Amino acid sequence: MGANIFSEKHQITFYETDVTNTVTPAMLVNMIILASEDQTDALGVGAESVAKLGIGWVVTQYKMDITRLPKVGETVKLSTQATCYNRYFAFREFWVHDSAGKECVHVESIWVTMNHETRKLVTIPEAVIAPFNSEEVKMIPRISRPKRLTDSDQLMTKKYQVRYFDIDGNGHVNNAHYFDWLLDALPMSFLTRHNLTGINIRFENEVQYHHMVTSEATLMTDVPETIMTKHRIVMENGEVATEAEFHWEPITNHTDQA
Amino acid sequence: MGANIFSEKHQITFYETDVTNTVTPAMLVNMIILASEDQTDALGVGAESVAKLGIGWVVTQYKMDITRLPKVGETVKLSTQATCYNRYFAFREFWVHDSAGKECVHVESIWVTMNHETRKLVTIPEAVIAPFNSEEVKMIPRISRPKRLTDSDQLMTKKYQVRYFDIDGNGHVNNAHYFDWLLDALPMSFLTRHNLTGINIRFENEVQYHHMVTSEATLMTDVPETIMTKHRIVMENGEVATEAEFHWEPITNHTDQA
Repeated sequence: MGANIFSEKHQITFYETDVTNTVTPAMLVNMIILASEDQTDALGVGAESVAKLGIGWVVTQYKMDITRLPKVGETVKLSTQATCYNRYFAFREFWVHDSAGKECVHVESIWVTMNHETRKLVTIPEAVIAPFNSEEVKMIPRISRPKRLTDSDQLMTKKYQVRYFDIDGNGHVNNAHYFDWLLDALPMSFLTRHNLTGINIRFENEVQYHHMVTSEATLMTDVPETIMTKHRIVMENGEVATEAEFHWEPITNHTDQA
Repeated sequence: MGANIFSEKHQITFYETDVTNTVTPAMLVNMIILASEDQTDALGVGAESVAKLGIGWVVTQYKMDITRLPKVGETVKLSTQATCYNRYFAFREFWVHDSAGKECVHVESIWVTMNHETRKLVTIPEAVIAPFNSEEVKMIPRISRPKRLTDSDQLMTKKYQVRYFDIDGNGHVNNAHYFDWLLDALPMSFLTRHNLTGINIRFENEVQYHHMVTSEATLMTDVPETIMTKHRIVMENGEVATEAEFHWEPITNHTDQA
């Protein structure tokens, strides 16, 4: 018996898309999280009920394989399942399918439960995970680390201050915003001429309201026939908030939208 | 015979709300614009067909009366009508009602048609306005100007650089983002302790990708028994992009969410 799959439909609005009318990675993450929130609510283990235990779910990593990102006006099917878990880690998958039933995006993610006060990991309570029919395993599937920026990389950088509207209902920065910071460090001429084919992002440290962060990015040039950018978000104290790699392909027959 | 009213339902997602789980002004604007886009598309005079005439609709002012801003999870009804117009100006109204049928927000707005290349006003073509059954009038209703900041005002300021993801499918900054810049200049302690009751915003000059803008705000203290903040967005060349006033009331019996 596998884990329950939960699905819901969503129509892409103009404000979930970019200058090329394509859904933004930040909004894609918001949508899949919406599906998982709706699943947890439907199963009676939503954020509110979990908060009564003094804990909350926190994502530590996403790995996305992207066939294509949907466009404005499309109605997509968002699906998710809590595939498996062990004492400390839960492995959740997401899928985005278009109206023809073709897979647009597959996402693997790793989650932990964190004590709200101490911000420390706690073992995943049985009551919180049981309703998903998730498989209990020794080891959850490994997701490789994003490739690291090195001292010799030529960096593109931009600074961002965390805004009031970046803070979500839990009082934390909605980490979908990290995607906007990460990608905005790349030139518009690059962003409008390439399609995203993959994302690997790892969340290391939380940023807070009013923090100033630096988004650093570099285009990898040492691997032939691949187009990959490496990224990180660095906090003012020098700690890394997030590391990420993005994979790209050139847009063929594109019309220049920039 | 009055103008056609167009309505659609919308469920508020977590990523359309703030730390108090209340819909953000930026997302409220996105939602009502979504309704008007769906109306224009349904009537065969959507942005694409209007673009074939070399023009586009541009909003110059919004005035919002807010009874209450909806919360996460609520399903609201978004309604709009192109109430009346003259040679150069169209007056459009919007309403947001909650599931009990109570009015949450009423918006008055003024629109012009602009030539895409010259960025100059053009007379509103008959073909573009006719399908709305809008009333042709000599003078559209006046909306007062937002009160101006003066040299003696104590300013709170923050700087923002226009990001890649601020640009919409028309290649322009989606002006919903202005609301985030305007309000983020206010302290979080103020924003979490007051409800918005009214907005008056006037768009003067367009900002572009990579522009640096300064958001300036002040709390008016000279009018008794009202809580009002005055705002503007100033561009690097000193021109004013946007002027706005926001009206507030204290939240009573609030739980501290900050």
